[in-house]
Amino acid sequence: MRALAFEGPGKRAFIEKPKPVVQEATDAVVRITKTTICGTDLHILKGDVPTVTPGRILGHEGVGVIDSVGDAVTSFKPGDRVLISCITSDGRCEACRKAMYSHCERGGWILGNRIDGTQAEFVRIPFADTSLYRAPAGVDEEALVLLSDILPTGYECGVLNGKVKPGDTVAIVGAGPIGLASLLTAQFYAPAELIMIDVDDKRLERSKQFGATHILNSRRDDAAKQVLELTGNRGVEVAIEAVGIPATFDLCQNILAPGGHLANVGVHGKSAELRLEKLWDRNITITTRLVDTETTPLLLKTIASGKLHPEKLITHRFRLDEVMKAYDVFENAAREGALKVLISAD
Amino acid sequence: MRALAFEGPGKRAFIEKPKPVVQEATDAVVRITKTTICGTDLHILKGDVPTVTPGRILGHEGVGVIDSVGDAVTSFKPGDRVLISCITSDGRCEACRKAMYSHCERGGWILGNRIDGTQAEFVRIPFADTSLYRAPAGVDEEALVLLSDILPTGYECGVLNGKVKPGDTVAIVGAGPIGLASLLTAQFYAPAELIMIDVDDKRLERSKQFGATHILNSRRDDAAKQVLELTGNRGVEVAIEAVGIPATFDLCQNILAPGGHLANVGVHGKSAELRLEKLWDRNITITTRLVDTETTPLLLKTIASGKLHPEKLITHRFRLDEVMKAYDVFENAAREGALKVLISAD
Amino acid sequence: MRALAFEGPGKRAFIEKPKPVVQEATDAVVRITKTTICGTDLHILKGDVPTVTPGRILGHEGVGVIDSVGDAVTSFKPGDRVLISCITSDGRCEACRKAMYSHCERGGWILGNRIDGTQAEFVRIPFADTSLYRAPAGVDEEALVLLSDILPTGYECGVLNGKVKPGDTVAIVGAGPIGLASLLTAQFYAPAELIMIDVDDKRLERSKQFGATHILNSRRDDAAKQVLELTGNRGVEVAIEAVGIPATFDLCQNILAPGGHLANVGVHGKSAELRLEKLWDRNITITTRLVDTETTPLLLKTIASGKLHPEKLITHRFRLDEVMKAYDVFENAAREGALKVLISAD
Amino acid sequence: MRALAFEGPGKRAFIEKPKPVVQEATDAVVRITKTTICGTDLHILKGDVPTVTPGRILGHEGVGVIDSVGDAVTSFKPGDRVLISCITSDGRCEACRKAMYSHCERGGWILGNRIDGTQAEFVRIPFADTSLYRAPAGVDEEALVLLSDILPTGYECGVLNGKVKPGDTVAIVGAGPIGLASLLTAQFYAPAELIMIDVDDKRLERSKQFGATHILNSRRDDAAKQVLELTGNRGVEVAIEAVGIPATFDLCQNILAPGGHLANVGVHGKSAELRLEKLWDRNITITTRLVDTETTPLLLKTIASGKLHPEKLITHRFRLDEVMKAYDVFENAAREGALKVLISAD
Repeated sequence: MRALAFEGPGKRAFIEKPKPVVQEATDAVVRITKTTICGTDLHILKGDVPTVTPGRILGHEGVGVIDSVGDAVTSFKPGDRVLISCITSDGRCEACRKAMYSHCERGGWILGNRIDGTQAEFVRIPFADTSLYRAPAGVDEEALVLLSDILPTGYECGVLNGKVKPGDTVAIVGAGPIGLASLLTAQFYAPAELIMIDVDDKRLERSKQFGATHILNSRRDDAAKQVLELTGNRGVEVAIEAVGIPATFDLCQNILAPGGHLANVGVHGKSAELRLEKLWDRNITITTRLVDTETTPLLLKTIASGKLHPEKLITHRFRLDEVMKAYDVFENAAREGALKVLISAD
Repeated sequence: MRALAFEGPGKRAFIEKPKPVVQEATDAVVRITKTTICGTDLHILKGDVPTVTPGRILGHEGVGVIDSVGDAVTSFKPGDRVLISCITSDGRCEACRKAMYSHCERGGWILGNRIDGTQAEFVRIPFADTSLYRAPAGVDEEALVLLSDILPTGYECGVLNGKVKPGDTVAIVGAGPIGLASLLTAQFYAPAELIMIDVDDKRLERSKQFGATHILNSRRDDAAKQVLELTGNRGVEVAIEAVGIPATFDLCQNILAPGGHLANVGVHGKSAELRLEKLWDRNITITTRLVDTETTPLLLKTIASGKLHPEKLITHRFRLDEVMKAYDVFENAAREGALKVLISAD
Repeated sequence: MRALAFEGPGKRAFIEKPKPVVQEATDAVVRITKTTICGTDLHILKGDVPTVTPGRILGHEGVGVIDSVGDAVTSFKPGDRVLISCITSDGRCEACRKAMYSHCERGGWILGNRIDGTQAEFVRIPFADTSLYRAPAGVDEEALVLLSDILPTGYECGVLNGKVKPGDTVAIVGAGPIGLASLLTAQFYAPAELIMIDVDDKRLERSKQFGATHILNSRRDDAAKQVLELTGNRGVEVAIEAVGIPATFDLCQNILAPGGHLANVGVHGKSAELRLEKLWDRNITITTRLVDTETTPLLLKTIASGKLHPEKLITHRFRLDEVMKAYDVFENAAREGALKVLISAD
Repeated sequence: MRALAFEGPGKRAFIEKPKPVVQEATDAVVRITKTTICGTDLHILKGDVPTVTPGRILGHEGVGVIDSVGDAVTSFKPGDRVLISCITSDGRCEACRKAMYSHCERGGWILGNRIDGTQAEFVRIPFADTSLYRAPAGVDEEALVLLSDILPTGYECGVLNGKVKPGDTVAIVGAGPIGLASLLTAQFYAPAELIMIDVDDKRLERSKQFGATHILNSRRDDAAKQVLELTGNRGVEVAIEAVGIPATFDLCQNILAPGGHLANVGVHGKSAELRLEKLWDRNITITTRLVDTETTPLLLKTIASGKLHPEKLITHRFRLDEVMKAYDVFENAAREGALKVLISAD
């Protein structure tokens, strides 16, 4: 079969590899119909993720059709249409029993990382019963594929951890795909104000179409000052960090109202300075989280009922044999105006 | 009346001052029977708290008897025995309506800070209906006075924010009075292990009498390493920071299990380094809080029913006219083996 | 001044009464601009509420302007535009300190019950600081007056107690004003399905305009059977009882999925049969509640930001001197197609 | 092998049956070392549980050693000492993903019900990875076996659902094994008062040894009246129903304070009257639950750390070949003074 492989730092190739087969009784093999590229794939290509070795097929998002299953798989059979979770869960370890699948002893984020991933014609999924979800009838695959990672990440790490509630003022720092996923899912809770902060005017403009009530360009403006002005000098109930650098974390901690929540979503490579001398008596909460995808069943219901339209995050569409070009576009997202690029393998 | 006053950085005096009177309809004047000295009073004496001006009577903890009340006070009458909360609450502002009394618009921590405090024969208490609590019949005043500040602080900022639950492994960094208050109230929730960490062997020994299951001297030992060993390399569910310096905060963030809670109780004068590059995917929660004393009614029930014996934190006892000597002892707590010093004014 | 008074069972009159004055330091007198009639007022007129004695001015909902305040009132001054809560809260008793204002020792539901109410030119409000809310700038009074009682009732007793969450299937039994208030506020949480059940087709039709995804006439159809069919025989996550008779409570308990919530909002005059032989192992939760109006600040933000439009519940409008006619209409709500009748006193 | 079988209503026998074998890849066979008899086994013998057919081996509690495992079992290997949960969980269905294992699609309570149980030398456990728990080193098997059912039932259905918290007044109606399990685990949360209500003085006396602060014999006394007197006419924060008849449910609803929780644990065969005319405005919560055993890992930690000593519920001890005699004793529990009878198979 054809697949996109990591070939060492800075190198990727569209190669031929043997079709995967069931190895354990709990495995399934899925024929991919739709997949996409994640910011993490770009990190891998830079050589930032040492667990990924040359030859690895990339990709941890996908929708497809069951090709074959191991003997112990009871929930799926060949022909079933499924959503692949970016997080593999064995469903039995201490972490999984607490629904903290991200820290599964035998799973977690392994697809396109420790084992071959989804940017291919077929993929082997370990612990299929607890790592795949049945696609609801009638749901579009373009909406569905965004539920592999980006929507649950924005929702769990940003919105749920941030405890967004009706009437709140919420600031989201970072209007990339993850920040926009937080923006879309924050609207489940009827916040009064949704302030989007970024350095790219095009992304900010798009945020308004996606429901932002205010936009701030932090390159041009003093965003902290403007947020305080907007809130009568009180600050926001929820600040969602969706970038992953010290400056954006710092902005978040500087705009929190007493009792506020700072939900970190960004992937950080460096420490940040935590201003405890100002925050120790402010009754604030800071959270971090790798997505658990525990809310996938809930999110499936919201797309099936039309409450959520994640497919509007897709800006470009490619066939699998154009995947190298898809990467070219996604690597130049700002110039190309790209959010999510869809790759069809069927 | 006689009172202990701040006289500028490094200076305190036992002075004569006029007895306070009711100024607002919501005020009460309380005759003090028991008070104590808090670590914060020492900070004030160092000149670290700019809101305290020379001449201010210190003290924000106390038990006493109602002397007089304003016209709008409905819950108390002269002769009632009361506990004074270190936090004044107007009961009506946005913060108070959320039980976040620490951020009350007209109150918060004002006693012995913006207005005269409790280390005196009498004190004026604003918003008496919502800032005083009726002393339960039969409860010892020595237990009661520790409910003004230290017990709710250890409980709310440490134990409740840390979400201690049965079976947990909890590490408390700092075995001073506040850390010990967390230690005592953590036991409300039947944790499996209570690891106490400090640099003072005497305090650590006392921790064992108060319920610690393990003690670690972080001056002598690599505390982080030992905690990881004790927990099978997993870390603790709850780390409570009860010192207030970067090194102890750092220790706390280094020993958290995935999904763990870091509850900051310490008063910090400096920033700390937040290791987001390690923590971003660890599903952890960090909280800060100034005590709200919202749990005072609950804590009153636990002392009335004998579930909590805070009076064992008292190591020294003085009369009000010995208050200067009480400060001498408390300022040399390590040498004197002092935890809380009780001052009787009756 | 002119006011609508209860004159004994079955009797009401539009009478002349002296303008109320401040009696306690914590009182305010409010000049009413808008008020409305509640189903409870009809119960009072039937003689069902023994605490209401002849001569009592009815009404516990209202918007107005502060006329005068007692000495201890700090949050309001004459001329301020305010929302009157149907629940009076002293802000200091044990219940109020838990935000359970409905069970306030000196307050609770007393307006138009134990003391004169709001269907008048002026009303005296005890504990004004904690029983009135400042009207947000720019908010329409017609939306505002529905926040006195009906919106917080539908929201707190129905939606919050029912724990509605994204993707849920929710059934609301009763499409009267309270059921519709639950329907409007349930949409804060993006449920997948909102099934409205009533016996009146006109009300059911209106429910669809207000966001119901399915409507069922329980007079004509076997509602329990249809709900089970709609949910693949599983039942609903949340059932909200908004009628107050045994039959509707019974319907609710018969359609709950395992783990479901039954939130009772209706005012009941009789016992219901609780089918413990079927429910004991179903992991369900049943709640009752008198509205606390603790969410009034939150609801004010949602109307100020345009997330909620309660004014669409208003079907008829009258001047205060037409209040007798307004009652005639409201007493024949089905025939008149009435939901809420607005009474303007300015 | 030897086993205790149901032989039709009123009949039980100690019979010879073939040793079970692994049937599915996810099965384990466990050699039983300790088991016990549950009140439910007596219900089965009365013919009350139609899913149990003649020939069925009874018993859903047990401790043992892994004898053999299917190919898909990854958590256990022959020789491992394990606790058997009374609830079988497939770990993959919608209910299990919410930790509501009691409603598992392929599991739930099936042992000694739909499939052969634990009162035997060996038992087959489906979905072993998610239905067995590793026995902590050093924990006594007599303590352990009580974690199969009775302790998690008292804890989850009674204490957790009742939301017991420090300082609460808790009433437990029923001092049988389940009520006592609630009594023991309620003490995890430092309640101020634990009122035990039963009709058997011997059981009440034993309750005092187990931590009850007050005991009431409801045959002799008006229990509701006495509870109200004890609580200053306010009622209890938590009432736990651990009997399963209308009268005890009624007692519970009559003694609840406003805002209180009624946690039903008892197995009911009949409806009860729910006094909505009194309760509709009392802000109360009623819960039902079949034990999920989701807290088994937590409870294992509390017994390993010595915070809980369930073994004191064991009053009689038998060898497996005396199991008929063990039933004789347990069927006459009142006369024999029996709580839990232990059966050793090793």
